[in-house]
Amino acid sequence: MQQTKILLEEKDMPTSWYNVMPDLPEPMAPPLDPETKKPIAPEKLSAIFPMSLIEQEMSGERWIDIPEPIQEIYRLYRPSPLVRARRLEQAIGSKARIYYKDESVSPAGSHKPNTAVAQAYYNKMEGVRRLATETGAGQWGTALSFACKMLDMKCTVYMVRCSYDQKPYRGIIIRAYGGEVFPSPSRHTSVGRKVLEQDPNSGGSLGLAISEAVEDAAQNNDTKYALGSVLNHVIHHQTITGLEVKKQLEIAGETPDVLIGCVGGGSNFGGLVLPYMPEKLEGQKIRFMAVEPQACPTLTKGRFAYDYGDMARQTPLIKMYTLGHGYFPPPIHSGGLRYHGEAPIVSHAAKLGLLEARAYFQNEVFDAARLFMQTEGFLPAPETAHAIKAAIDAAKEADPGQVVVFLYSGHGLLDLGSYDAYLKGELKDQAFSDDEIEKSLSECPEI
Amino acid sequence: MQQTKILLEEKDMPTSWYNVMPDLPEPMAPPLDPETKKPIAPEKLSAIFPMSLIEQEMSGERWIDIPEPIQEIYRLYRPSPLVRARRLEQAIGSKARIYYKDESVSPAGSHKPNTAVAQAYYNKMEGVRRLATETGAGQWGTALSFACKMLDMKCTVYMVRCSYDQKPYRGIIIRAYGGEVFPSPSRHTSVGRKVLEQDPNSGGSLGLAISEAVEDAAQNNDTKYALGSVLNHVIHHQTITGLEVKKQLEIAGETPDVLIGCVGGGSNFGGLVLPYMPEKLEGQKIRFMAVEPQACPTLTKGRFAYDYGDMARQTPLIKMYTLGHGYFPPPIHSGGLRYHGEAPIVSHAAKLGLLEARAYFQNEVFDAARLFMQTEGFLPAPETAHAIKAAIDAAKEADPGQVVVFLYSGHGLLDLGSYDAYLKGELKDQAFSDDEIEKSLSECPEI
Repeated sequence: MQQTKILLEEKDMPTSWYNVMPDLPEPMAPPLDPETKKPIAPEKLSAIFPMSLIEQEMSGERWIDIPEPIQEIYRLYRPSPLVRARRLEQAIGSKARIYYKDESVSPAGSHKPNTAVAQAYYNKMEGVRRLATETGAGQWGTALSFACKMLDMKCTVYMVRCSYDQKPYRGIIIRAYGGEVFPSPSRHTSVGRKVLEQDPNSGGSLGLAISEAVEDAAQNNDTKYALGSVLNHVIHHQTITGLEVKKQLEIAGETPDVLIGCVGGGSNFGGLVLPYMPEKLEGQKIRFMAVEPQACPTLTKGRFAYDYGDMARQTPLIKMYTLGHGYFPPPIHSGGLRYHGEAPIVSHAAKLGLLEARAYFQNEVFDAARLFMQTEGFLPAPETAHAIKAAIDAAKEADPGQVVVFLYSGHGLLDLGSYDAYLKGELKDQAFSDDEIEKSLSECPEI
Repeated sequence: MQQTKILLEEKDMPTSWYNVMPDLPEPMAPPLDPETKKPIAPEKLSAIFPMSLIEQEMSGERWIDIPEPIQEIYRLYRPSPLVRARRLEQAIGSKARIYYKDESVSPAGSHKPNTAVAQAYYNKMEGVRRLATETGAGQWGTALSFACKMLDMKCTVYMVRCSYDQKPYRGIIIRAYGGEVFPSPSRHTSVGRKVLEQDPNSGGSLGLAISEAVEDAAQNNDTKYALGSVLNHVIHHQTITGLEVKKQLEIAGETPDVLIGCVGGGSNFGGLVLPYMPEKLEGQKIRFMAVEPQACPTLTKGRFAYDYGDMARQTPLIKMYTLGHGYFPPPIHSGGLRYHGEAPIVSHAAKLGLLEARAYFQNEVFDAARLFMQTEGFLPAPETAHAIKAAIDAAKEADPGQVVVFLYSGHGLLDLGSYDAYLKGELKDQAFSDDEIEKSLSECPEI
């Protein structure tokens, strides 16, 4: 019998998250106050974040204990399986072995609850009763509304209007968890009302939805703001996936040669690869591969610079790979990868040459998704399919016997409209021209 | 640490299916030829089924080996977890322990692949290249198209027109697996064309879709027909769930007091409870509880009689609980439970007093679904929610320390339109009046 899935028992689930910062060869550049351009004071963030998460954001400790109430909710779906993709290997004639870490098994269908549950918990411990957030395609909003319900908190989601209309199932599932969801721009914030006055039919943007959620949190005492990617503490929470993979590969008697994840804000990728950073820095030959869309090529064509996290220039300035905070990517079907920036931790590692990046067009990505589904059976999210495409290419290029591992960040069951467009041949392959990138980057502040 | 999930290793997956027939205290009545009203000859079924499945249908052997190629595909998702629903227990103040067997983890999102993979395999072994089937809400069509792709076969699905229009994601996922799906009535069969001539806007029915699929199989040499429930061999294949539960409860040190499943055709319920029949017949106190909608109360208000399996009177006559083959249930949101009959094995066990049945209205069922989702995190299919409702009631009625187990037959991620209607208060609670039942039953043949 050939084994397919490598399972961990609940008692073997990691009990700490990993913080890569003390292990990095050079320190990261600090976030800056947008007004003074000096390193931002923690207190300034406390209007929208609880102190415990701000401490994690700034922490130099290598390990962060996972409180038992978070572990208890994790055990609804964790540890997640590591799966040997034998049928995919056979289909592509791979001499390498391919494994995927299946984070689609969570209630929200993606890796996002790993941080949503943690953020809801720490907020609740500090007396917060409601979390406000934005969501694009809806994965994050689903995860946070799930997490808030598990901890008996309220949740308000500002969902980019065009996605709200295109993906009605996302709004329904958020409501079924007891969350409230408003299409953004909404009439619930002054920034939303201002936009609606100018354009009552505005389709919204992620940057605007962030502004609405931040305003909501800043103006209500019982409410804080939660972000689903980019920030350091989010990446820390996601390392539980990579820590589990280490244990699972050990059980399988394997050493990884390539670790792969798709990158939007960078949290699922960071969560998988960063726990392997000590081995890499000690000289073990192991490649970290970040995969992004050609339509939003942050790591492959962006600039390492201080930039704003949102379009409205409300967030601290962050040193990261960016395409410019005003960049508006083409409407590709991987909504979760349409972010102009990249997590500072991931950006810093990229700048140090510790990872490599690849960009793909969406039709080749959906080809890979279909091949995966028709061999392994499961339907991936379009975002996840970027990692699958890269894993297939890496396996084809690999030496015989090498081990390729990718993070299966979520299922595509609420993305079937995108599959329909793909099957009908309606998807466009759009890249960003060098001229457009130059123009967008020219808006980055000079620091 | 309190354990949540009881996992089996792949090496502990059952390698045989269980056939309850030799263990039943009385033999079942045979299916009859609709023309002669005599027991049907196996050859007569061979136009639409392969001989190996006809043999399983008639078999008196207690155990049927699961061929390794089927086990290999099962291992993509099996063994499935048995989960302790602690948070649900707490929410209802239960002194009983509640477990659920999670069959939503399959690629198709339900228990259906357990038989779809087996049926595709046996057909392929006999040279069949294509399977034709019908589907109502779409769970079965999704499962069979998945199974056919895994075995490199073609699949044609006739999907009831009104469901095809209401649930577009189902058609897309079937196509993404490489299957073809036609709204029924279609122009691909003579029976479909006939209906369309009379009513070009016909919404179709499950009975009509069966007729189209059977005609397709009977008229094409390379094609056979596959059915997703009701038949004996389908129930045998589903016993892998109950056999796994036995192993898992043993690991947990538990003895079940109540086993619960929803019933449409009866396959998920039969699969869970029948492996416990020997213990029950030996005197162990264990209740089997079948749960159905008030809108289609086959076991609670139907008659045990010979009746046709389809509306068009093409199938053999089957001794079963039935509401009459002409019964057209109200358009409740549990499409998988809208069948006028019940599996002969399940019906026979009910007639012998070996199981009990309960019927619920759909709003109380969705209330239970929402409570489950808001405590355990996962979104159940509306069909599955019937089992959840009964499990909650059974746990409340149970003595302290009793063990209630239900089969979580599928997720509801492609049923969010129904949740939307529920959340908006638009669902109607419809029951079938005794007069209507009498009228419908009067059409059963007199045998």
